[in-house]
Formats: sequence, C-alpha cells, structure tokens
Amino acid sequence: MISEFDLIRRYFSRPTFHTDLGVGDDAALFRARSGMQLVVSTDTLIAEVHFLSGTDPEDLGWKTLAVSLSDLAAMGAEPRWATLSLTLPRIDENWLNAFSNGFYACAARYNVDLVGGDTTRGPLALNVCIVGEVPAGNAITRAGAKAGDDLWVSGLPGRAALGLAALKKNIELNPEGEAQCLSALHHPEPRVGLGMALRGIATAMLDISDGLAGDLRHLAERSGVGAVIEYERLPLLPLLAAGADETTALRCALAGGDDYELLFTASPVHRPSLAECASLLAVPLTRIGYITADKLLFQQPDGHLQTLDFSGYDHFG
Amino acid sequence: MISEFDLIRRYFSRPTFHTDLGVGDDAALFRARSGMQLVVSTDTLIAEVHFLSGTDPEDLGWKTLAVSLSDLAAMGAEPRWATLSLTLPRIDENWLNAFSNGFYACAARYNVDLVGGDTTRGPLALNVCIVGEVPAGNAITRAGAKAGDDLWVSGLPGRAALGLAALKKNIELNPEGEAQCLSALHHPEPRVGLGMALRGIATAMLDISDGLAGDLRHLAERSGVGAVIEYERLPLLPLLAAGADETTALRCALAGGDDYELLFTASPVHRPSLAECASLLAVPLTRIGYITADKLLFQQPDGHLQTLDFSGYDHFG
Repeated sequence: MISEFDLIRRYFSRPTFHTDLGVGDDAALFRARSGMQLVVSTDTLIAEVHFLSGTDPEDLGWKTLAVSLSDLAAMGAEPRWATLSLTLPRIDENWLNAFSNGFYACAARYNVDLVGGDTTRGPLALNVCIVGEVPAGNAITRAGAKAGDDLWVSGLPGRAALGLAALKKNIELNPEGEAQCLSALHHPEPRVGLGMALRGIATAMLDISDGLAGDLRHLAERSGVGAVIEYERLPLLPLLAAGADETTALRCALAGGDDYELLFTASPVHRPSLAECASLLAVPLTRIGYITADKLLFQQPDGHLQTLDFSGYDHFG
Repeated sequence: MISEFDLIRRYFSRPTFHTDLGVGDDAALFRARSGMQLVVSTDTLIAEVHFLSGTDPEDLGWKTLAVSLSDLAAMGAEPRWATLSLTLPRIDENWLNAFSNGFYACAARYNVDLVGGDTTRGPLALNVCIVGEVPAGNAITRAGAKAGDDLWVSGLPGRAALGLAALKKNIELNPEGEAQCLSALHHPEPRVGLGMALRGIATAMLDISDGLAGDLRHLAERSGVGAVIEYERLPLLPLLAAGADETTALRCALAGGDDYELLFTASPVHRPSLAECASLLAVPLTRIGYITADKLLFQQPDGHLQTLDFSGYDHFG
C-alpha cells in the first residue's frame, strides 16, 4: 500500500517556478512581488454534489483548479500559488495519475505553482486554496457598479447546465452541441486573461459559478444598485443551435451553474475597448443589459419589464 | 431554511484587523508587510478520521484552526490570515454557533483574520488554509539539522493520544490526569510564540502532529542526518502521573498523534537561551536526545541502543 508521503512525492511534487519552498515541509514559502496585493480564495468540490463520481479524473483535476482560478479572474488578479487538499476513499493510482495530470495541465496553462496540500482518507472531496496577486488598489470587487453602467457577460453562459442535463438524459442535444456543452461542463477555461484586462475598465465583477441571475443579485446587493437584463441581448443562439428549446436555453443561461464566466459592469464609454478586448483575447463578450438605481428586472422581447425571478444555485436553499 | 449566504453572514463575518477585503467577494485581499516571506499551509479534518463526530463543536472550532497554526509555528512564522471550508451534512445552527465561537476564539488568541471560505453540503469535513509571514530568509524548515545538535521537544507529547485512549475506554486515567489529557486532545495550544522565538536558534523544526518518532524520521530524512532519542530524557513522568503504565506512556509519547508540539534541533551552545525561553514562555522544553550522522536510534535505560521502530500516523499506511 502506497503511503501518504509516497503518494505526495509521486503525484504532487512537480517543480515550482516562483516559490522559495514548495511541497514537503510544514508549510510553503513564497514572496509577493513589490507593490502587489494578495488575493486568496478557496473552493471545495464534493462527489455527487459538484461532480458525478464517474467524471473522468483528468477532467476533474483540471476543473478542480479551474474553478478556483475563476474566483481570481473575477477580481482581476493573476494566479500564482495553490494548495490542494484531497480526501480519498481509497488509493487508486490510475485515478491519481490522471487527476494529477489534469491538475498540473491547468496549473501550467495559468502559471500556478502547487506549493502544498493535505491528503486524508474519507468521502471523495477536493479543495483548492488559490493565492494570486493584483497591483495594490486595482482589484475589481462586486461593489462599484453605478446606475448607467453597461452589464456584460463573457462566453456563453448556460452551456455547462445544458451539458449536465444532457448527461443526465433530461434533454437531447445534437452531437456537436452536446460535445461543446460537455466541454464547458468538464473543462472550463477560467477567464484569467480577461479578468486582468478588465482592470481599470470594469466597475464591478464576479464569476457566475452559481448562475447568472443569482450572481447578478450578489453584485447588485454589494453595489447597492439594480439592473435590467434584456432578453434580446442574451447570447442564446448557440444554446438553441445545440438543440435546446427556447425555455430550456433561457433557463440554463439565467439559472444554470458551473459556467465560470465573468459578469461585469462598465461605463458605456468603454464599449469600443471591450470590443477590441474580446477580439484580442478571442473571448465572446456580450452586453446583456444595464445597471439601474434599484430592482432587478428582466425585459421581455415585447419590451415588457418583469421581476427577475431565477434564483441561483444555493447548496442549502 | 437558512441559505449558504445567510449562514456565512451570520456565523463567519466578524471584523478583520489587517485585511483589505474579507469574507463576501470572490476572493479576499490583503498585503504582506515589507520584507516578509509568505508561509502557507492547509489541513483537513474529517469526522471519524480526525475527530469523533460527537466532539464538542466549540472545541472542534478551536482545534480546526489550531492544527493549522501549528504548521506555521513549525516554520517560525507569524499567523495572519485564514480561510475556512466547511462541508456539512445539514445546517444545525446551534452547532454552527458553537463551532464559530471556538474558531474565532482561537483566531482572536493568535491574531488571525478569517478572510474567506466555502460552505458545501456533504459528509462533515473541515479545511483551513492558513497564511502567515516570516522575515524573509528566517523560516525554520525540516532541513538544517547537523550531527551534534541537541534534539528538543516542547510540551508533553503523548497526552493527546492518552486522552483519546481514555475516551475510547481503552485505558483508565485518574480524574486530574484524564482532564489534562482530554484538554490536550480537544484544545491544543499551537506553539506560535515558541516557534517565532526559535528563529535563529533552531536549525530544523517540525510539529509532531503525526507522532514524535515518525515525525523525527521526516526531519532526519530532510536534513540527511540520524538521531538518538534517550529514554531517560523523555518527559514521561506526567503521563505516568496521569495513570498510564510505562509501556503505554512510552508508546503514546513516541507514536501518539495529535500533539501539535514542536520537535526541533539546536546547537548545544543554545542550552542556556532555551532554558530562558522555556521559562519566559511558560512552555516545557525538554532535550530528549541528539543528532548523529545517520540512523534513528533509541537509547534504553541501560544504555543499550536499538533501532527506533515506532512509526507515525499515516492516513493510508
């Protein structure tokens, strides 16, 4: 039986690039760069709550880090260091090998050093604590949206939820659409480059891991504003093209979780630079509405305004 | 039913003291002080693996943070910030209230800001990621012990294991001894002040959360040295006074986990300053042996040297 120490040595001790002391001591040591503020977030993924236990372990390794990177992206921060806590029901070396490959692939892509962690026996659960940097005073928080700001979203929210519904055989998508939606679900690309590019442009930002409408509510509460989402501006066409009906597409776009896209606000003066940014980074950016003084509203195709009533994903709601 | 957001607002949103942005956004923001290296560690506690599920929640809240602080103490670091990830099978507000009181009591004692976390539904598990600071270049790692160094331990290792054995009715202690051992088990005091005081004195250090002998092996491997533990120097008297027989006392002292004491090495020239340090901090410090070129040995009362054969606690061994 492989020991905890051998397990860490074998699967989680790859070289680091900007760390003074990595895995293997009581704690890791590293230095923040001059003028930088540290940015820290943590996320836990539980089997059968956040992922199906049959999920491909390489995908799961990627996603375990990606969801934490999305939190840093949402602050405009640059990811730097991560710890990984694994709770495993048993040691399965094939699983560990694939999982660590997926995790390190994401770490390499986003220049993250894995610097520490913990391995315990128990029901399958994965926790990452991520540490990044942002030039002091330049982080983009949820507070800061002002009435008159545009409301923007990156990517195509709703695809992960569609993919999950297809996986559970609740809906049927066409093959190409299903492949794209499953990729969004299993292999999310955190919007790290976009988040950093939005420093000085976005007035407020968060990632929509819990669903666009529910997360908009968090941004609005924190900023003390309201917002209108315009049905006609939502990027629903790709969801319809994947084979979803209109009701399902709308529901997934507004209430589906697991998308890891960025929802942000910006003054209308930035529309040209945001168009340029989308093109440079090859990330779709869609203006889906605007910020108001209060109330969260949804504008129907006929122009009628109704209360936005899709709630987000709440683990205890 | 209380939501995840209300739960965090109600139980985990107390004021911070050296943090720019705490709980409530996608990530927390804080700044390292000038000249400081960051020190990061993470620990997971799983119900029935690391604690009995009937454990008093206030004690458990304290211990959840204390075990992570012990890792920073073992580096000579000063704790500053923590994240807390809670996985809960259900919402029990009485439990949460007591748990958060215990957690914040430990945070207040050691000047730690709780800056973020995550709450998910699942089998009871607790994870802390702790971030501290140490003047750059002054951290005490596991590598650095030299042949001829003294081997020291803080406190009275073995008490937590004796307490657990008493709790499981495997042994019987006298009432006063049992109270002390249960306090060591449920309410460990991380040796933060001692760890910081040992900067410039200890040549290598770790905390003995996995048992003295097993953790000595980690220190020896990392430093490329051997060591001798002398039976006659071990602080066994308090364990015997609690009601343990000699075999049990020795076994608990060498192989018992959960003690969170510091094991460290230092040149013999520091004996006077270590005696002064013990007295100033009111922490027992015992010289239990010495570092050699190789091999881990145990010196019997009759002077006979045998191989040290108590292995530490390994979650997958």
